[in-house]
Amino acid sequence: MSFTKAPLLLLGMSVWLSTSALAVEAGANETGPVKAPSRPKNIVIMIGDGMGPSYTSAYRYYKDNPDTEEVEQTVFDRLLVGMASTYPANVSGYVTDSAAAATALATGVKSYNGAISVDTQKQPLPTILEKAKTLGLSTGVAVTSQINHATPAAFLSHNESRKNYDALALSYLETNADVFLGGGQKYFPPELLAQFTAKGYQHITRFDDLASITQPKVLGLFAEVQLPWAIDEKDAKKLSTLTQKALSLLSQNEQGFVLLVEGSLIDWAGHNNDIAAAMGEMDEFANAIEVVEQFVRQNPDTLMVITADHNTGGLSIGADGNYNWNPEILRNISASSDTLAQAALGGDTWQADLSRGLGFELTEEEVAKLNVARMQGLETMAIAIRHVIDKRTDTGWTTGGHTGTDVQVFAAGPASELFNGHQDNTDIANKIFSLLPKPKKPKAPAQVSTPAPAAIPVQPQG
Amino acid sequence: MSFTKAPLLLLGMSVWLSTSALAVEAGANETGPVKAPSRPKNIVIMIGDGMGPSYTSAYRYYKDNPDTEEVEQTVFDRLLVGMASTYPANVSGYVTDSAAAATALATGVKSYNGAISVDTQKQPLPTILEKAKTLGLSTGVAVTSQINHATPAAFLSHNESRKNYDALALSYLETNADVFLGGGQKYFPPELLAQFTAKGYQHITRFDDLASITQPKVLGLFAEVQLPWAIDEKDAKKLSTLTQKALSLLSQNEQGFVLLVEGSLIDWAGHNNDIAAAMGEMDEFANAIEVVEQFVRQNPDTLMVITADHNTGGLSIGADGNYNWNPEILRNISASSDTLAQAALGGDTWQADLSRGLGFELTEEEVAKLNVARMQGLETMAIAIRHVIDKRTDTGWTTGGHTGTDVQVFAAGPASELFNGHQDNTDIANKIFSLLPKPKKPKAPAQVSTPAPAAIPVQPQG
Repeated sequence: MSFTKAPLLLLGMSVWLSTSALAVEAGANETGPVKAPSRPKNIVIMIGDGMGPSYTSAYRYYKDNPDTEEVEQTVFDRLLVGMASTYPANVSGYVTDSAAAATALATGVKSYNGAISVDTQKQPLPTILEKAKTLGLSTGVAVTSQINHATPAAFLSHNESRKNYDALALSYLETNADVFLGGGQKYFPPELLAQFTAKGYQHITRFDDLASITQPKVLGLFAEVQLPWAIDEKDAKKLSTLTQKALSLLSQNEQGFVLLVEGSLIDWAGHNNDIAAAMGEMDEFANAIEVVEQFVRQNPDTLMVITADHNTGGLSIGADGNYNWNPEILRNISASSDTLAQAALGGDTWQADLSRGLGFELTEEEVAKLNVARMQGLETMAIAIRHVIDKRTDTGWTTGGHTGTDVQVFAAGPASELFNGHQDNTDIANKIFSLLPKPKKPKAPAQVSTPAPAAIPVQPQG
Repeated sequence: MSFTKAPLLLLGMSVWLSTSALAVEAGANETGPVKAPSRPKNIVIMIGDGMGPSYTSAYRYYKDNPDTEEVEQTVFDRLLVGMASTYPANVSGYVTDSAAAATALATGVKSYNGAISVDTQKQPLPTILEKAKTLGLSTGVAVTSQINHATPAAFLSHNESRKNYDALALSYLETNADVFLGGGQKYFPPELLAQFTAKGYQHITRFDDLASITQPKVLGLFAEVQLPWAIDEKDAKKLSTLTQKALSLLSQNEQGFVLLVEGSLIDWAGHNNDIAAAMGEMDEFANAIEVVEQFVRQNPDTLMVITADHNTGGLSIGADGNYNWNPEILRNISASSDTLAQAALGGDTWQADLSRGLGFELTEEEVAKLNVARMQGLETMAIAIRHVIDKRTDTGWTTGGHTGTDVQVFAAGPASELFNGHQDNTDIANKIFSLLPKPKKPKAPAQVSTPAPAAIPVQPQG
């Protein structure tokens, strides 16, 4: 290097320092002008379940202000750093389910579809949340599914099958996690709740009671199974409120925390091929991301990493040869297709009610098709309503299941540049493992650096 | 910053220097250990037409070695740096065509679908290749479509409509571009060819004659319209050969060059919903990328930027509820559905021939469907063959047109980190404009820094 360039290089160093991961040990910069350490104290992992690239693109156009010439950027655009492959272990082919994907993201190891943080031999794999707990960090989950659904379960527990919901709920007793927020009342019977209470957990079920919780530990179960569709509860902002509360509770630990936030129902809307519900879930997941983004701004020792576990539905923006997509229609739809169909089953005024709910007048042809579907019951009616919406908006789908397209990775905070470019979903977990604090007793590192998971037996298939 | 960390920082500086854009003026490092300048001398822009995220993911699984446990990374994985939005000017909604997308990528300005580097008022917009030419750089295109198709046309010329192929071919006379390689013989009649020859262009039509070309200028037109499907000419490696030749010719200019390479037929395969042909085109585009990657290694003053103009077909990896994709079937298919259908129309042995071409035995049910389609002619038979392949591989499509999903951005070489993260397609062009060398006469920069395009009249709609 030319010495004449040295002053210029020195000027550039603070930039380099603040964006270079692990070049300097954490805490080394406390007396200098660089605020953010290179290692995070806190880590927030956020998963948009099923949120493939078409979802974030569609969301940008859904949120576009029609009164401006330009298309406004979203929080996803602001935070994009890379992409990730999602394929499961060889035995399950190239298309993952949520369990294998969550296992990869929680443990850094690929497993079979259905696995909850067990390997292909059904042996438990240490998870990020478990390791964080052994290191003295607080841990928690805030999700819109039941808290024992595949994604949070793989971060907290182990089971040979995602379907063993009762066993997974029971296993949560042993996790010592500090915050459980989401749905799933039906999996936590009174006897189990009593055990949580005996271990010091506050148990709440009313969303409004969340405000009264000021310290961990908390088990907040706000629905029988999953939370209501965001589109059915406009302005409820449930996931972002849960996220805010989780941050406030977990950040009381001076040693730091790891929090998992999941926009679980993006995937469920994708399985339903319900584009209006999907955009509603995306919007509330974006709200939750903005809550975390604000926390990272105020706490520059916090890393946030966002990704999807896989892509759901084969969603496309434009369909059937039309070079077009009409999100303005979606902005006026006031409820999920499930809710609109339920309402349309009863009452003589269903056509007018449905038109009002959809925000547009139904054509005679649409009414004729819906009328046939209505006679066949709730599910067929819901599908027929989605077809009307898809046709009007030029939305396409290829499946009620998952697809193998890579997903995006978004990040901000210390060491966020570790997630730049292409990576596998297991790499995301392994990078996060590498960012957890070193064990406190360096003279015996082997005992804690790769801790065995809590001794929770693998449950038989339920 | 802590002074005790200074030695560590100094150690890190060469890394920082080699990856930091524009921090040091080009050429400043010639005497030091850092080889790559911060500004490129040469720029290679590569476009996978229609190559949305599902194409690069599918290609990874298509190329996966079934004899290994892991899934091998591709050249796309190695080079991924970001993503780009593709929407056209407001007047054309959210889903772009290739013309508006190429206009954005060539000029940094959004226009209407159909526009060839003219704005929404149909006024010509300066293109990257035009500006490079005014700065003394060599320019060229190497594509698999006709050379006057939308993408190369928008980098070279201006027209109110992409459909004005003859006018676009004529306009190429005025571009002074050094290398034209691709298809399109039908748009270059003898009189026009004579004009090119009079201007010093060597004109060739036989692919084998490419080897005899040792210096620009060259007009190589190797097909009536587009080049044959790559899958129909296994091991022909046409695009990568054209790319290698273009690099060899353009790099003779000491001042540098800008080359556009397009894998044009990825899009055409997507429009056909022909997954086998799409993977064949992806493979040859990947070969071309590897040629450029090798050139960048040997010439570290060269920047390569790769993207797609949009996503075609709504391709999905997995369909109809199946958590599965079977690329091993695709690896054995020996021809495009067009070619297989053509062969199946004649001859009594069509079933055996088609089975051999597909690489699997047709079931009775498949034969029955194909037999019905065969009676209806070439196009219906080709569609029926694609349906068989889609069903067997679990491949999904939503459209014969384009979709609005963001596309990926890949880059290597000096200033490649400028393309990290999310950007709009116009941003890609504007970043490349910013990397072109400064005009040679700095005392009158206004005259050349934003040069007017060559005075090519806007042609009426044809």
